[in-house]
Amino acid sequence: MPKLSPLAPDRFPDMPEVGGVRFATAACGLRYKGRTDLLVAELAPGSAVAGVFTRSLASSAPVDWCRKALRGGRARAVVVNSGNANAFTGKAGVAAVAATVAGAARMLSCRPTEVFVASTGVIGEQLAADKIVAALPALRDRLSASAWAEAAAAIMTTDTFPKGAARRARIGETEVAIAGFAKGSGMIAPDMATMLAFVFTDAKIPAKALQALLERGNARSFNAITVDGDTSTSDTLLLCATGAAKHWRIAGAGDPAIRDFRRALDEVLRDLAHQVVKDGEGAEKFVEIAVTGAASPRAARRIGFAIANSPLVKTAIAGADANWGRIVMAVGKAGEKADRDRLRIAIGGVAVAEKGGAVEGYDETPVVAHMKGRDIRIAVDVGVGKGAATVWTCDFTHGYIDINGSYRS
Amino acid sequence: MPKLSPLAPDRFPDMPEVGGVRFATAACGLRYKGRTDLLVAELAPGSAVAGVFTRSLASSAPVDWCRKALRGGRARAVVVNSGNANAFTGKAGVAAVAATVAGAARMLSCRPTEVFVASTGVIGEQLAADKIVAALPALRDRLSASAWAEAAAAIMTTDTFPKGAARRARIGETEVAIAGFAKGSGMIAPDMATMLAFVFTDAKIPAKALQALLERGNARSFNAITVDGDTSTSDTLLLCATGAAKHWRIAGAGDPAIRDFRRALDEVLRDLAHQVVKDGEGAEKFVEIAVTGAASPRAARRIGFAIANSPLVKTAIAGADANWGRIVMAVGKAGEKADRDRLRIAIGGVAVAEKGGAVEGYDETPVVAHMKGRDIRIAVDVGVGKGAATVWTCDFTHGYIDINGSYRS
Repeated sequence: MPKLSPLAPDRFPDMPEVGGVRFATAACGLRYKGRTDLLVAELAPGSAVAGVFTRSLASSAPVDWCRKALRGGRARAVVVNSGNANAFTGKAGVAAVAATVAGAARMLSCRPTEVFVASTGVIGEQLAADKIVAALPALRDRLSASAWAEAAAAIMTTDTFPKGAARRARIGETEVAIAGFAKGSGMIAPDMATMLAFVFTDAKIPAKALQALLERGNARSFNAITVDGDTSTSDTLLLCATGAAKHWRIAGAGDPAIRDFRRALDEVLRDLAHQVVKDGEGAEKFVEIAVTGAASPRAARRIGFAIANSPLVKTAIAGADANWGRIVMAVGKAGEKADRDRLRIAIGGVAVAEKGGAVEGYDETPVVAHMKGRDIRIAVDVGVGKGAATVWTCDFTHGYIDINGSYRS
Repeated sequence: MPKLSPLAPDRFPDMPEVGGVRFATAACGLRYKGRTDLLVAELAPGSAVAGVFTRSLASSAPVDWCRKALRGGRARAVVVNSGNANAFTGKAGVAAVAATVAGAARMLSCRPTEVFVASTGVIGEQLAADKIVAALPALRDRLSASAWAEAAAAIMTTDTFPKGAARRARIGETEVAIAGFAKGSGMIAPDMATMLAFVFTDAKIPAKALQALLERGNARSFNAITVDGDTSTSDTLLLCATGAAKHWRIAGAGDPAIRDFRRALDEVLRDLAHQVVKDGEGAEKFVEIAVTGAASPRAARRIGFAIANSPLVKTAIAGADANWGRIVMAVGKAGEKADRDRLRIAIGGVAVAEKGGAVEGYDETPVVAHMKGRDIRIAVDVGVGKGAATVWTCDFTHGYIDINGSYRS
């Protein structure tokens, strides 16, 4: 059992019940002993669903299924297992998804295309879907609207803490809830694939608008984090809207009435994404990299990730070393327009480099103090345009090598 | 002093004298105490030169100079210092290059554009060019055609061994020599920028043909290696041809008479590039990744580097873990055409995965034995085309974190 991340929050947050959403978990023994490894989320009839998935060209069978099912825009169930990713499992993997989907559809008397599945764990081993199918019927009577912590725990693999977040928002005069949970980080841990996140709301939002809201929020949250730059075969983020709340009809993602909902959704997604980084393997520090002055937002994002994924930058942060030379190097390798002589770098709010060199009379003292803390802030102004983006990562420590470099037993 | 890499060769190789090339080194105290940090290579009048440089957009002042000087195609001197990279040093850095170039031009009575410079070491600190200029005149009387080992040692930074390679080749009836040395790996060590390599031959080859030969050889050697995926501000590879050997006139890079020369040059470049990988920070294993069946050679190369730069693959190798699931993951993230169900992976010559899963009756025993050795061979057939490429890297160990994550003193 890996030790709790030093960046973990004090406790799992208070989560509101979300009308139309209930959870049940079970221990199927897919890989782990003495813990839950199966989650079913039941959604009220008529619930809309949106999803974003890994861009890996070797995506897992569950991801392939979800992409197809998403065309219907409706969800009645989300079935998640931990311990086995059902990735690179060929035709047998596709059959395992079909069996799981059929079992859940029977359990909840819904159409197969209303069942979404996600699997996280070992790659390249067959998933024992029969164990899942056998466990499903008994879960129907144990569905609970308050089982958030249990749900978040059942989907963990090498996570050191369960990750939840919730916000409230107003749509017109009506208060709605947004709540969700997540696991894992990018491509994580010994063989463990997958970042998974599931967010639920009682708002009534058509699937198309929901999809637009999710993609926008995802770009600024889960798509703006990195632990090791690796890409999972299984990354899945689903947003389900039950429509249990009674509020004005939403015309689309641009409807002004939805502004506060959008804010709250973005906050939930960002909160969960930050927790994923804070549980990065071996992470000792949480790092924010804010890039401004790039040629475009896309260029800013690429520069941000070039810094965030640089092993040299990440090891320097681990060593509390305000080594801005490595940041210059990372900007240079991003392949985006940059001007060495206009580049400005600040660490912890203190300017360290500008005009092609260290700032005049640079005093390292406050910067070193900042680098010794848990929350590191790096700001880079590229000096060529107005593109901006912020990305988040963690440092790169011996803990990462310990977790990933040990021989599989 | 870091301990010698376990992948280091037994000794520095025997190097032939190359007509028209002489070396001298000095200790200027630019950063290090008690060791040499300045190298001058003198080339006979009329020597041709070719070069390839970092693609970093934040390239160093010496690189900017060399790019410009290369237009002339002639070289009389190469001046290299270690300890300071003269990178991100603004206008003062450009002035330091100009002073060094002027000093060497005076020393050898040549044009400034015949002087090439390279610097490796700390980024963002001013280079004390006055110390270099003061040391140059005394070196004129100490130039030696046999001082290869001294030359290779003077340019080291965090390297744990000097890197040299030599081959002989025939052009028509004439035997020519090709010999060179290198240092560093990608973007290496605490603040240390730069991979540098200098290769010399007594063949008589016009600059344009020389450049074509170098670019071709570089693509299969230095551009096919990675330690941490980071890109130096200063990478420099120069090939100088003095023309001291008397042989048939070479028409161009495609001249059949040059075939054996090309083979020998490629061998020297690959040998040096492999030594750079074998001195990768914390490296315990040398890894060859051969990709075949990709949509194009470029796609094969990108897939190879996605595998070679994956922290999860590299830590698995460090742990002697034949974790092909991580290789699948890396192929998936490369963004190139791949077919999960046609992908084939072999480790140490043993097939481990094919047709969307582990090979039937997979026996891990010989693969585990291979993974425990020093030389790891991974072969990936993507199954979609005829593109092939081979890249080399090392594993990712605690040693890397030790070297890069320690606080600068």
